[in-house]
Amino acid sequence: MTKHPKWQDFPVGEARRYLEPGPIVLVSSAHEGARNIMTLGWQTILEFSPSLVGLMISRGNHSHRMIRDSGECVINLPTTALTDTVVRVGNTSGAKIDKFAEFGLTAREAEKVSAPLIAECHAAFECRLHDDALVDKYDFFIFEIVKAHVAPVPAHPETLHYTGNGVFVLSGKTISRKSLFEPWML
Amino acid sequence: MTKHPKWQDFPVGEARRYLEPGPIVLVSSAHEGARNIMTLGWQTILEFSPSLVGLMISRGNHSHRMIRDSGECVINLPTTALTDTVVRVGNTSGAKIDKFAEFGLTAREAEKVSAPLIAECHAAFECRLHDDALVDKYDFFIFEIVKAHVAPVPAHPETLHYTGNGVFVLSGKTISRKSLFEPWML
Repeated sequence: MTKHPKWQDFPVGEARRYLEPGPIVLVSSAHEGARNIMTLGWQTILEFSPSLVGLMISRGNHSHRMIRDSGECVINLPTTALTDTVVRVGNTSGAKIDKFAEFGLTAREAEKVSAPLIAECHAAFECRLHDDALVDKYDFFIFEIVKAHVAPVPAHPETLHYTGNGVFVLSGKTISRKSLFEPWML
Repeated sequence: MTKHPKWQDFPVGEARRYLEPGPIVLVSSAHEGARNIMTLGWQTILEFSPSLVGLMISRGNHSHRMIRDSGECVINLPTTALTDTVVRVGNTSGAKIDKFAEFGLTAREAEKVSAPLIAECHAAFECRLHDDALVDKYDFFIFEIVKAHVAPVPAHPETLHYTGNGVFVLSGKTISRKSLFEPWML
């Protein structure tokens, strides 16, 4: 049984600390009584305030329509404790199974959106659709993170970064170069 | 003196192998006799074919105008051998210095664009502007990678992933879960 990390509220404008390194995330959604989870690696931070993030959610995914119609999702950050689950979520379709039930994941109620949080993840970012201008052409959604939940320990969890072909590179050691930064760049 | 990795041609549609893990990159540009480099972490793969990548290049950067006006850039992938250079490039302005000269970086001629390749990097992706629809509103550029140069060794170089506050997490060990993937998902 996977543990449920103890979350605390986290400043939405600092989501980059967890998303900018480029980890694989689990995107959860809910619409009209259904819920789903997808695995996603094509994401980028776009702005600090409002806290904007861009996600490329291909229309080939069952989640695409649910996220578009509900205008909401949750970006959940799994660690390597969930590696096999991350892969299985990414290789099955919510059109056929309830991934929460199938993979033993716990849906926890979010505060500001209807999409569920995944309790086994290290962090969860509640998102509302901010701009769909590039959805038709590129399946690219711009979301605002409206609430962030983060487990404060460990400060730098071991995350999964996908390279394609079934291979992940894991986050490793942490280094600081703070002394080389201009104060306004920190 | 930093080595110049020996590049080979690489399929543009497989750029995700190096960019999807979310590394910090050095974006080089050239316009009207000037050249520049910026450090960037806000990027995502958007499509395999054409090979599209989205970069959030803030208008606060000297490079923004050069890239917009030239419609070109090169995304260079530094390894941890260049850590201090990456930070210094990110904390100085091309309005005041020539970063190639200042930081001892070697500009190599690209094949399909005027922006220079950075010879000290592990890989370099020549890019042409594909869509500027979100530049005015979000400083978000969609580029097509039109030529890719990659050093084949090591297969998974040690890259820098930024968390803010002067702290980087490095890419660590590599794991495969290929056996858990559906064949069409690889």
